[in-house]
Order: sequence, then structure tokens, then C-alpha cells
Amino acid sequence: MQPATPHPASEPDAESTSVWGFADSGFTLDDGGIVKFTGSRYALCGEPLPHLLPWVEQTMQVKLDPALAQPSAYPPAVDSPLLCAGFVAAIEEFLPADQRSVDPLVRLRHGHGHTQAEMHAIKHGRFGRVPDMVVYPDSESEVVALVQAAKAHGVCLIPYGGGTNVTEALRCADGEARSIVCVDLKRLRRILWVDRENRLACIEAGAVGRHLVDALQAHGFTLGHEPDSIEFSTLGGWIATHASGMKKNRYGNIEDIVMDMRVVTADGLLHRVGNSVAPRESIGFDPRRLMFGSEGSLGIITSAVVKLFPLPEVQAYGSVLFPDFSRSVRFLYELTQAGNLPASVRLVDNTQFQFSMALKPARQGWRKVRSALEKFVVTRLRGFDPQQMTAATLVFEGDAALVKAQEAQVYRLAKRHGGIKAGEENGRRGYALTYSIAYIRDFVMQHHVLAESFETSVPWSQAETLCERVKARLLLEHQQRGLPGKPFITCRISQLYDTGVCVYFYFGFYTRGVDQPSVVYADIEHAARQEILDAGGSLSHHHGIGKVRQPFLPQIFSTAALKWGDQAKQALDPNHLFACGNNP
Amino acid sequence: MQPATPHPASEPDAESTSVWGFADSGFTLDDGGIVKFTGSRYALCGEPLPHLLPWVEQTMQVKLDPALAQPSAYPPAVDSPLLCAGFVAAIEEFLPADQRSVDPLVRLRHGHGHTQAEMHAIKHGRFGRVPDMVVYPDSESEVVALVQAAKAHGVCLIPYGGGTNVTEALRCADGEARSIVCVDLKRLRRILWVDRENRLACIEAGAVGRHLVDALQAHGFTLGHEPDSIEFSTLGGWIATHASGMKKNRYGNIEDIVMDMRVVTADGLLHRVGNSVAPRESIGFDPRRLMFGSEGSLGIITSAVVKLFPLPEVQAYGSVLFPDFSRSVRFLYELTQAGNLPASVRLVDNTQFQFSMALKPARQGWRKVRSALEKFVVTRLRGFDPQQMTAATLVFEGDAALVKAQEAQVYRLAKRHGGIKAGEENGRRGYALTYSIAYIRDFVMQHHVLAESFETSVPWSQAETLCERVKARLLLEHQQRGLPGKPFITCRISQLYDTGVCVYFYFGFYTRGVDQPSVVYADIEHAARQEILDAGGSLSHHHGIGKVRQPFLPQIFSTAALKWGDQAKQALDPNHLFACGNNP
Repeated sequence: MQPATPHPASEPDAESTSVWGFADSGFTLDDGGIVKFTGSRYALCGEPLPHLLPWVEQTMQVKLDPALAQPSAYPPAVDSPLLCAGFVAAIEEFLPADQRSVDPLVRLRHGHGHTQAEMHAIKHGRFGRVPDMVVYPDSESEVVALVQAAKAHGVCLIPYGGGTNVTEALRCADGEARSIVCVDLKRLRRILWVDRENRLACIEAGAVGRHLVDALQAHGFTLGHEPDSIEFSTLGGWIATHASGMKKNRYGNIEDIVMDMRVVTADGLLHRVGNSVAPRESIGFDPRRLMFGSEGSLGIITSAVVKLFPLPEVQAYGSVLFPDFSRSVRFLYELTQAGNLPASVRLVDNTQFQFSMALKPARQGWRKVRSALEKFVVTRLRGFDPQQMTAATLVFEGDAALVKAQEAQVYRLAKRHGGIKAGEENGRRGYALTYSIAYIRDFVMQHHVLAESFETSVPWSQAETLCERVKARLLLEHQQRGLPGKPFITCRISQLYDTGVCVYFYFGFYTRGVDQPSVVYADIEHAARQEILDAGGSLSHHHGIGKVRQPFLPQIFSTAALKWGDQAKQALDPNHLFACGNNP
Repeated sequence: MQPATPHPASEPDAESTSVWGFADSGFTLDDGGIVKFTGSRYALCGEPLPHLLPWVEQTMQVKLDPALAQPSAYPPAVDSPLLCAGFVAAIEEFLPADQRSVDPLVRLRHGHGHTQAEMHAIKHGRFGRVPDMVVYPDSESEVVALVQAAKAHGVCLIPYGGGTNVTEALRCADGEARSIVCVDLKRLRRILWVDRENRLACIEAGAVGRHLVDALQAHGFTLGHEPDSIEFSTLGGWIATHASGMKKNRYGNIEDIVMDMRVVTADGLLHRVGNSVAPRESIGFDPRRLMFGSEGSLGIITSAVVKLFPLPEVQAYGSVLFPDFSRSVRFLYELTQAGNLPASVRLVDNTQFQFSMALKPARQGWRKVRSALEKFVVTRLRGFDPQQMTAATLVFEGDAALVKAQEAQVYRLAKRHGGIKAGEENGRRGYALTYSIAYIRDFVMQHHVLAESFETSVPWSQAETLCERVKARLLLEHQQRGLPGKPFITCRISQLYDTGVCVYFYFGFYTRGVDQPSVVYADIEHAARQEILDAGGSLSHHHGIGKVRQPFLPQIFSTAALKWGDQAKQALDPNHLFACGNNP
């Protein structure tokens, strides 16, 4: 055991409240139609990205005129808070003033996550109810006291981690008459202990992913859990949403990494007693298991014990180009069945491959890039159609022998399916893009494009068909509504399992002149979700249910199963103290 | 998808009801003190085992005189059944006569598992209440109908798989006033489908492990789940007890293997709707998760979808001798931290190593074996003390390259810790012994020795100390009671995890002249369990809680956590239909 390792208390990186990410980062468009990425945090920063706008315009068959940009009307009006005097008086007894806020903008930020609907509403529409108060407990005992005060005074609570969910999990539930208090766990971010011998750490639930990477690296370890939101999302949020990390092949998903946790419930502190953390146990009804996917509805996770992994001896990237989607999916299948997968393997379809090419900072115009690409294809990649080819990116982590064996296997199998090695740099770039590309949703929203991603998981046998069906459905929904231009539709296979894959879809459309575009988007996404279910996909691989996907629950669980959820919630939180309105 | 693959309907292998295992198998002792193993199922069968009795007598410092053998008084008296006429009439409507039994011996067998206390009681003592009726549904719809009838007529139900539990999970709960009906799932044993492409199979819950091995092998697959009880235990039982298989390093534990399940609950059929099995999903409250470790208290599992693995290209065994326990544990630690573990790695302490040597069928007397061993040690294993040395056995499964790499790593690290390769045959023999050795408990019971195993899991840092403390505690408890001879005390590390291990303890003592020996055993085991908890061990790694370990629950879960278990049970089964009396 090591002494407690408090996390640096100060955090200089300001986050935006009206758009995704750090305040100093984001796409901008100059009057000449050249896109740049501000700040210095990402590989994309600084250099002009002259091909992006032309590619988007060509793909979506619309003109994105800087002069027509839609200014953000953020912030929307925020209602006065509904405060419970008894509760406020009670918490003032133990919570200092800087750990309480009724500021409208603070409350607004705590009332939503990052769905297009929410982000569109705060900038271009009206936003419904937001929490009446935000509190920032600094210790587990303060969380316990908050829960007791809420119970005593008839207030309800919503836990808040990084605010990055895409399921409307944070949106206040309809019809809630009580005062709603949001419990932001940002101060609960200490690493309480690191146990080098057993490779375990006990970490407070509000710890943010990117801070954990740094802090654990100083100990020579990694958690290995890298969701796309790692810059902002928290340990507690990962548990509550049943999160998945991009390197899960090596490190596992969140349920594989978390070995123990403490939760403040309506009944008090739920925890495992004892002087150690079991590597695995069979102890009957284990209430901790209920917290995975609980989405704030059963209690407030205050800390968790997680597995640590030594920093890999080798980290290597790679990429492979394939002639078409079918062949690349067959490659993924064969690779998975062979076992010994790289830490991460991702496959982008042709549109997404083109998109990533368009994001290359280069001085040539898009036409030149395209013609260069076509020439490259003709000369180096005979038989590759630039309108069909796909790309897989790879991250290898482990000791040198393991990485070497994985690389040999990957490239041998890729070759069998027509794949051609496309170098380490393209692989590295693909992963780095994950974080900067997250800013594009709010950038294009200014230019009348609504775009968002949604995901599913599906067995291998249905994977390719599902991708085709969902894309066709999105296209059809777009056409049937007579929406302008062409939609942006693409998919990526982001996780591999023995029995199937996780697929991400991206859908965007031009909204200028469209009435209630955000509602239209939601309707189309709803249709696509139905197509996903009909095609054998799951309701969610790792985003969760929140409020957006609740209408589909009767399609995935029997009546008895749904009733169990309701009955369990009623039994474990009879006063509905945790009234976020998520499942159950 | 493949068509349904029904399992062979007939089962020629009769099982004992009064002792462990197949009726044709077991240890016998002739008047000359020579032990043999009957039948032809196991490697141990046929040849005399002349060293066993001398070794046991020397180790336990007692004389096991065949003439003093304690005859089994099986069966004990069985009370008349408490039948509910309304229920019986209701089920006669849909359940043929050969699917119902009130036979006293059938009821007796369904009222216990395989703890020493239960097995001692049925042979040498009195047994409490047993189920009043046993039913054998042949389909899920019959299970549903049984549950409805039970609900309508105030009868309670106990599901029954293989009857191999060692937690008194099947023992009727104290104070149950209603008619108790045991639902034996043996007829629900079909493989409903095999999906080669996604490597999945849907299997009824009553399917027995050994049958699954054969049936899936015919498809070119394995489940990879091999608990020590695989000959008799069932898929549903594995889920209900949260089981672990000896090859979990390669195939995972039961929670990693089961992808979906169907459960008949008090509220109806709990299942996942839809036309596929998700490889992984985040769907909020997932009631299926509650079934792992549910021990019959929440419903009757009728089928599950499980992962399949291709039969390994190579299966290889290995063994290593180590100079002492400490060094062998350090080897295991280093091997685990290096990763890429063989499918199974087990370590026996010195006593268990000696015990396995004593089980060798050979024509020399024990003294000769010992002197040969000592000579071998002196000449080949310099520095090895025959009273200290330990042995690790290994199973490698995978493709040739993987097995080769694992072998190279194992033997390289073993050497670093003073280990010496002891050949494939010793490894193979070690694993084969797992199944035949299970018969010894009932054999020695005839000769006034009570012996049983119990297990835990513990972090690496506490593993060796825990082993020492528990052994010392067992010795002390034995001494303090002035019990005859010396106790048989040994341990085995049977599973490796990144953060710790599973440890099995074996304790036996000579009971002739001891009053209520089975109660004495239980008291000592209880003390050892307390020592386990005090030393940082878990309440159970894979056996579960049942009734035996319930008293310890307040030592492992907070009040709120325990309350959640009670509240969930009350909410999900308000009429206490599944009244087995296990946790929750």
C-alpha cells in the first residue's frame, strides 16, 4: 500500500459550456472558406484544413456560406430555481458557500449532456427545466449528509460526473414537482491509495479520465480505460453508464476493471466490508453489480477500486487499407476468431475514410488531393476504388514479443482479405482525431448542419447487413422528408468481440429552411434505432439508455424483466430520492 | 444457425444417492489394507494403491482398521410429504406421472448437496425436512405452469440442477410451513441451437457438464467451462452459484461465458426480446445480472446462450516442482503479472504433493516410494526438501505458437524461482485426479475420517499469509479440542487473477470416539472461515453462500448493502415463492 495520492487540486483547463470541449479549442471558418482548429492541444491545431469544407459541400451537396452562419443564442432563459428552504438551511450547516450554486448558467450546464437535441436547444431553442441548485461535496461524508438532508426535506438528487452523456440522462425528468439538486462530484477526485503489489487503486468517483491517465502514469500504471470522452468523463460516470474503452481488447470494459465500489444510497452507504479487495467472488446477491448502467437512479457512487496495468513496454500504431467494406469486415471477423487482438482495432467505412482524408492539413485544394489519391490508388493500390475503399486503424500495446506477434498476425490476415499496410502514421492520426473530431458537431451546427453519432452492438452474422440497412434507412428518412442536399451517413466498427462488434453511425443533414431541425433529427435517429433493433442490433453498446432510448425498452426486455426494474427501483429507493428519471 | 440439436435422451450412468459420484466408481479397502478404485472411468481405476493407507495413517497418526469400518446407515428416515392437494391436482393436468415423484429416497436426494454435514447426516445421522415432492418439467412452458400453480396454491419451489453444491443451498429452509416442491431440471437438457458463425449456443439449463463437453465437441466446439463438478453439475447451477472453471484463464468464468438467459420468475418469464444476442450492451438495469449467484432464490433459469470456443489445436500438460511454497507462490505472481497465462495453473502445497504421490499405483510399499523419492530429490533436485517441496500443474490450450510461447514463459519464470520441470505426465495426472479424488470424502468417512474442502479468494499480497494463518488455525482448533491423531491440512492455489488467487483448503480429522463429529467439523470450518476473513480472504470465490456462509454476510457487506438484498428479494418475489432460504 502507498500513502494517499491526492490529485492536483487546481485545474487550469476551462471547459466550454455552450459547445463541446475545452474553451480554447474548436473549429473555425474564415471568410475564405478555410477551416482551422484553434488552440494547441491537438495534432489538428494551427494548420489550415482547406479540404474540409469543399469535401463536406460536395458530399452533402450544399453550400456552407460563412456569411450565413447561424449565431449561437446561448444561453437560453433559465427559470428561477425552486428552492427548498429547509434543505438549503440544512446543507448550509456543513457545506461551505463555494460548494453550492444557484447560478443560472451553472444550473443550465448541469441540466444536460451532449445530445444534438440538448446542444441545439441551449443555443438555438428553448431549454426546459434545469436543476434548482448544484452542490459540490468534497467528501463521501458530505455526500451522505446531502442524501440525508434531501431525504429529510423532500428534495431529489441527480448525480453529475463529466456531463458528457449522449442519452439525456441529466435532463430533468418531466413532472418532477420537488426541488432538484444536482450533485456534482468534481471535488471527489482524489486517488485514495495505490497498491502496487496487487495492482489496484482506490479512486474517488469524480476523477476525470485525463487526470487519471497522468496521475497513474506517474506511478508507472494505466487504467487502460479510454472512452472517446476520456478528456472530460469521470470514473463514476463510466460505472453509471456501463462504459467501454477503445483499448478494451487488452484492458477490458469498465465492468472488468472495477473491482469494488462505494455508493451512497437512500438507505445509507453501500459497500463491501473487510480489509481487502477480492480478485473474484461468489457471494450471492451483490448490489454493487446493479450500479453498472444505473445512470444515477440508484445512488451516488463515491469511489471505486480499479485494476491497474503496467504501462506497456511498447505502444505501436498501424493502419491497413481495404478495397471495400465487406472484405474489411471479413478481415475483422477472422482476426477476432484467431484471438490475440491488438489493444484497439477500428474500421472506418469509405465515407469516413474520405472524411479523414479531407481533414488532412495540406496546401493543395481538395481536387488535387482527390486526384493524387486516385493516382495513388491506380498506381499503388490496383483494383482499389476510391469510392469503396476502407481503412482499419490499430493500436498495439504490450511487451515487444506480444506486439510483434500481433502485428504479424494482423498484416498476414489483412493481406488475405486484400488489405494493404498504410503505415503507422495513419494509425496514430486516426486515434488522435477521435478527440478533435468531437468538436465538429458544434462547429457545423453554426453552419446549419445537425450531426451526431449513435451506436449499437450486433452479432458478426448480422453486422454488415445492419450497417447497410441503417444507412439505407437514414437515406430514405432523409429523402422522404424532402430535406435539402444529401445526408452525411457513415459508420465505424469500433469494438470487436468474440461474438460480434460495436458499430457507430454518424448522421448529419443540412437544416437551413427546415422547421424544428432538432426534432427532425431526433425523429430520424429514432427511425434508425428501430432499424438497428430490427436488424439484430442492441439498444446500446455503451452509451446507455438515459431518456432517449427508454421508449425502446419493451422491444428488448420481456414484461417481467421490465417489471423487475421498476420493482427494484421502488424497493431500493422508495421515496424516489434519485429522481433523474432514467431506467429503472 | 443450425437446427436444434437435442441431447441424447437416455443416460446410462447411474449416480449414487448416498455417496459422491457414479454408482460404479469409488475407493474400496480390502482386508489387507490395500486401496483400489472400482470401475473403469478414471485413470486411477483397477490398479492397487498400496501407498495410500500407509501415507494417510502416518500423516494423521491413526490406524485405519478395515475391521472397524463404520457401516453406512443410509437412508435415514424420511418424513411423510406435506402435499398440497390443490397444487397436485393442478399439475396433474399438465405433468405426466413420470414427471412427478413423492418417493422418499428421491425426495431425500433432492434435499441436500454435498457438504460433509449433509453427507454425514444421510449416512450416520438424522436428516431434517426434505422436499415434499419432486417434479421434472420437460419444457420451459411446463416450468411456467409449475410456477403459476405454485403461486395459485401457496406452494414454494426450489430449483435443482446437479445437486453438487457444498453450501447447503438445497437444504429446506427452517420454519417453512408450506409444501415444498423441488423442480429438478434434468429433462431440460437440450442444445436448442448452435450458431457456428457467432460461436454461440442456446442450451437448456439442466444440461450436465460432461454431456455438454461431448455434444459440443461433436460440433467442433468447447464451452471451456470446467468446474471440478463438471461430471454432474449443470449450466443453470453454474449460473446460480456464479461458478468458476479450471480453465478460466483461457475461457473465462461463467459470467464471461453466458451471454443471455431466460428465467421463470414469480412475475413470469424474464428474458431478452429480439432476434439476436448482443456481444455486449449497456441497457440500464439488467435483471439477468441478478441471476449470477442467485442460488435459487429469484427464479428458475430455463436456458442460457453461451459462448463457444473452437477446440484447441493443441492441448498440452506440464508440471513443475518447487523447493517450497513461498517460492512457488512468487512464481505464480510473476507469471500472472507477465500475462499470457496457460489455460490452467494450479499449485499444491507439500502435503497435497505427498498425497498425490501416495495415490500412485505402484507395486512397492510406501517406504520404498519415499526412499526412492528422497533419492530422486538428493540426486536430481539438490536442495529440495521432500517435506517442503511443492508442485504446479499446467494445462496449455490454443494454437501451437501460443502454447509454445506460454510453455517457454512458464519454464523460464519457474527456473528463476528454483522450479524444475517435472514432465507432462505428472501434469496430466494431476488434472485427471481432480475427478477421482472427489470420491475420497465418502470413502474415508467409512473409516472415521471427516474431510472436506472450502475455498476463498485473496489478493496476492495476503495470499501466502492467509494460507499459513488458516492452516495454523485449523491445527489449533484440532489441538484445542483434543481430537485424536493429527489433522489432515493442506491447500491448493487453483486460480490466478491479476489481483489475487483462489485458494482451496482441505481439512480432515479422525472422528472415532468423537461426539457429534460432523458438528465438530462444522465448528472448525466456521473458525477457519473467520480466520480467512480476518486474513483478507473473501467469503467465497465460487462455491457461494447457500446457508452455510450466511452468518458471515454482515462481515462482508454494509447494512445498506444487506438491506438491498432483502428489499430486492421482497420486491421481486413478494410471496416468497422461491423459498430455498438462500441469500438474499
